[in-house]
Amino acid sequence: MPHLHTLFIILDGLGDSSCERLEGRTPLQASTQKNITRFLKHGSTGLLTPIAPGVPPSSDTAHLSIFGYDIKKEYPGRGPFEALGSGVYLKEGEIAFRANIATVEIKGDHIIVLDRRAGRMPSEETAELAKMVNEELGNVDGLEFELVPTLEHRAVLVVRGEGLCHQVSDTDPHETGVPLLKSQPLEESENIKGSLKLSNALNKWTVKMIKLLENSPLNEKRRKANLPIGNIFLARSPGVMTKLVSFEDKWGMKAGAVAAGQLYRGVALMLGMDLFDAPGATGLPNTDIGSKLKVALSKIDRYDFMFVHIKATDVFSHKKDPLGKKEFIEKFDSALSIIKEDFVKSNVLVITGDHSTPCNRGMHSGDPVPFLLAGPLTRIDGTTHFDELNARKGLLGFIRGEDVMPLILDATERTIEYGTRPSPRKVNYIPRDLTPLKISEYSR
Amino acid sequence: MPHLHTLFIILDGLGDSSCERLEGRTPLQASTQKNITRFLKHGSTGLLTPIAPGVPPSSDTAHLSIFGYDIKKEYPGRGPFEALGSGVYLKEGEIAFRANIATVEIKGDHIIVLDRRAGRMPSEETAELAKMVNEELGNVDGLEFELVPTLEHRAVLVVRGEGLCHQVSDTDPHETGVPLLKSQPLEESENIKGSLKLSNALNKWTVKMIKLLENSPLNEKRRKANLPIGNIFLARSPGVMTKLVSFEDKWGMKAGAVAAGQLYRGVALMLGMDLFDAPGATGLPNTDIGSKLKVALSKIDRYDFMFVHIKATDVFSHKKDPLGKKEFIEKFDSALSIIKEDFVKSNVLVITGDHSTPCNRGMHSGDPVPFLLAGPLTRIDGTTHFDELNARKGLLGFIRGEDVMPLILDATERTIEYGTRPSPRKVNYIPRDLTPLKISEYSR
Repeated sequence: MPHLHTLFIILDGLGDSSCERLEGRTPLQASTQKNITRFLKHGSTGLLTPIAPGVPPSSDTAHLSIFGYDIKKEYPGRGPFEALGSGVYLKEGEIAFRANIATVEIKGDHIIVLDRRAGRMPSEETAELAKMVNEELGNVDGLEFELVPTLEHRAVLVVRGEGLCHQVSDTDPHETGVPLLKSQPLEESENIKGSLKLSNALNKWTVKMIKLLENSPLNEKRRKANLPIGNIFLARSPGVMTKLVSFEDKWGMKAGAVAAGQLYRGVALMLGMDLFDAPGATGLPNTDIGSKLKVALSKIDRYDFMFVHIKATDVFSHKKDPLGKKEFIEKFDSALSIIKEDFVKSNVLVITGDHSTPCNRGMHSGDPVPFLLAGPLTRIDGTTHFDELNARKGLLGFIRGEDVMPLILDATERTIEYGTRPSPRKVNYIPRDLTPLKISEYSR
Repeated sequence: MPHLHTLFIILDGLGDSSCERLEGRTPLQASTQKNITRFLKHGSTGLLTPIAPGVPPSSDTAHLSIFGYDIKKEYPGRGPFEALGSGVYLKEGEIAFRANIATVEIKGDHIIVLDRRAGRMPSEETAELAKMVNEELGNVDGLEFELVPTLEHRAVLVVRGEGLCHQVSDTDPHETGVPLLKSQPLEESENIKGSLKLSNALNKWTVKMIKLLENSPLNEKRRKANLPIGNIFLARSPGVMTKLVSFEDKWGMKAGAVAAGQLYRGVALMLGMDLFDAPGATGLPNTDIGSKLKVALSKIDRYDFMFVHIKATDVFSHKKDPLGKKEFIEKFDSALSIIKEDFVKSNVLVITGDHSTPCNRGMHSGDPVPFLLAGPLTRIDGTTHFDELNARKGLLGFIRGEDVMPLILDATERTIEYGTRPSPRKVNYIPRDLTPLKISEYSR
């Protein structure tokens, strides 16, 4: 029996709060929704709390949670997702940090951060400095340190060595005008010795590179051009490369993904999804949403689950621009016109966010996100507008990250009754490896 | 202090989705509710998710969950419930499968299922074949195999032996035209060796009986009469007889039950409820609902908790007949006329389902079920019609199976404040075995 396919659209940071500049409405409430409305008629809404009430998720933990991963047990830290998404492939056990070339100034015994991006240094210059650091500081305390430059001021710092634990704090203070921080084992580290080894070496590597970079030919040039020099690589968001159970192995659904942002590409790759590029997709407000949807639709027949990620809603929220967010939502709504209303008579459509990023805050919050589920078997709850307040009255009620995949399995008829027909694999969804009984094996 | 008594009515598979044939309404939405309305005026509604969102329960796990049993820990598999309900009493540790006499055909090394009920073979013929199998294959690998025929093509397969584990998969493929399946230990088996021992013997027993039954005198006769022969007993839904904590010991309430369907009778007996027969109760659409309610009402003074099970709503759903389901709900509503409105001034009344079985699907789903709780102490939420959409606005909100019994305890004033007066039995309901302090014990 062929199963229904699912188009799963995440608008990053979609949930919001009442905005003064929108007369007390949220961007979703204020938006005109010509096309979303067509799908509301075929489905149910609810409010999704990705982790728990009051807990603002990072984008990677939000996605993992929604895709049914237990982030308390299965989350290996952010670094590897960012690395994978930037095309840096790691081996199991390797540590990855996100790194930025930055401008610092020494004040007494402290290192003060002046510019966290060294004036958004161009890619080739960041690469030149990274190369210098790799050549001179490729080995600290027996650990291998390698900077892999990616885009503009960004790089991935890979650390290799025996017995390391990624659970250490950042050297990056995440703001300017303040001292660089000492990396230390996290309180919750599962291997304090391994964390100590890593953080010590990272601190040494960090301090040593300042002198090395300060008088590099490139920085001499930048000083003359009155540009901020790049004299340090800040490290943040460590993680360890881990082989997670693939999405397909977890849920029995072959998955594809259309995403432009590096982190989301990394999440898709880490979960074994097939990643597709869409022309004009940028991960920015200027992205071509229609192009992304077109690619997703063109592939959906070959994928049980097609994940589409759209970033710009979150970008407007971080810029505290509710009007821009509302207009972008309307742009998304217009792009939806390429999906026929009949789509949900033979497929399942989900539209939701990974978390809320209220414009009045400019940061992720723990507020729930509107969730729309439409398909041929879904209860119709009569919601007329897709937003935080109306979704609260929807038939799905309040759901958590961990409920999302079971709801998809049920909406696509992949479930079997709990307690009956136990399979060799799992009790509550359709088994894929039933073995016929062979007479020859048992007739003796 | 005498406690309030509870009449707890479950309409099987009550929850549903929008049905085209009911102009987009659910059977409950479309139904006329003259009598339910009388009780809505005295209570609160909500939506009950028996297990978790997106998880469709089997009827037995749904009932257990609603009666406050932790199915992850306390569910012993379905077999013993079916066995008990058919009058087959098992000893602790004995394994029971549901079994069907069926028609199969050998194709090379595979066994293809042609008819899962051998043309709904009549009881006495099934009994004759079961007897043959018991005589010839009563012992396989040192395990005792016994078929106990029940009704028509049905039987219970009892397996006895040391160190067995019931966590094995079915040989019954649950569809026709496909090969019979090899029974295997389940991935989640808690005793792989015991599961392996059981599944191996079951596979052997299964393969060997085909030759035995094929040329039985009965099958010769059936061949001549052009009827499908019965040459195999398919086994499914294994379970192990376990002594569950009784409902009364768990909740401090003496419980009675009125149910006709075997599974529900089995659940009631397994939980130590006193089971009553009602004249004309069939577990089918032709059942006499009024008779069941009359029996329940006549006994309720002697029982703290009276469970009434009505099956036909689920039967119509499996037949994908929303109109029939709506009409049956109206039949139920009419039957409710024998309960006076005043009943809920001195008793608690619950009307709900054990799970949803949407007619557009014909299978159980993970959707929540409307729940009505009415009693002298219940909040009145002003719900005017009992259905999926209105219950969503009710004061009980979204509840889970595990919330139901605490709600009943509270509605019948059996609770004490959490954290105060902890008893030797339970923290959150009134202890029954408070022991007076004896001076003599402590004055020496």
